[in-house]
Amino acid sequence: MDEAALRVKLGAAIRERRMALAVSQEGFADAIQMHRTYYSSIERGERNLTLVTLWRVAEGLEVKVSQLLRDAGL
Amino acid sequence: MDEAALRVKLGAAIRERRMALAVSQEGFADAIQMHRTYYSSIERGERNLTLVTLWRVAEGLEVKVSQLLRDAGL
Repeated sequence: MDEAALRVKLGAAIRERRMALAVSQEGFADAIQMHRTYYSSIERGERNLTLVTLWRVAEGLEVKVSQLLRDAGL
Repeated sequence: MDEAALRVKLGAAIRERRMALAVSQEGFADAIQMHRTYYSSIERGERNLTLVTLWRVAEGLEVKVSQLLRDAGL
């Protein structure tokens, strides 16, 4: 799988979990103390996330990092 | 969980999977075309891996990224 596909799959899984919590991108980004534009670029699959950032997002989504990656099919 | 603990847990899970394949650090690093010293710092938990690097390591270990993170308890 190429890099872009990895990022897009993960971004989509993150978006799905965030929408399931009925929280806006802005609200979620604020909640995990992340810049809004950066967070929305994550959901668009434009960021090659690090483990630590992924952990922060997963914590905010109240899900394990491994589950988030499984959601993404990775 | 703090950043260092995240990195160390993941590094240990990677080491365990690599040893289960009975491959040396050098042999494994060469197989995934990664610099040996960089790879050994990953196993020591000194690197905040990106998704793409994690994917390369998981592919080399013949395991899904989500499984590797589950092994690490993340």
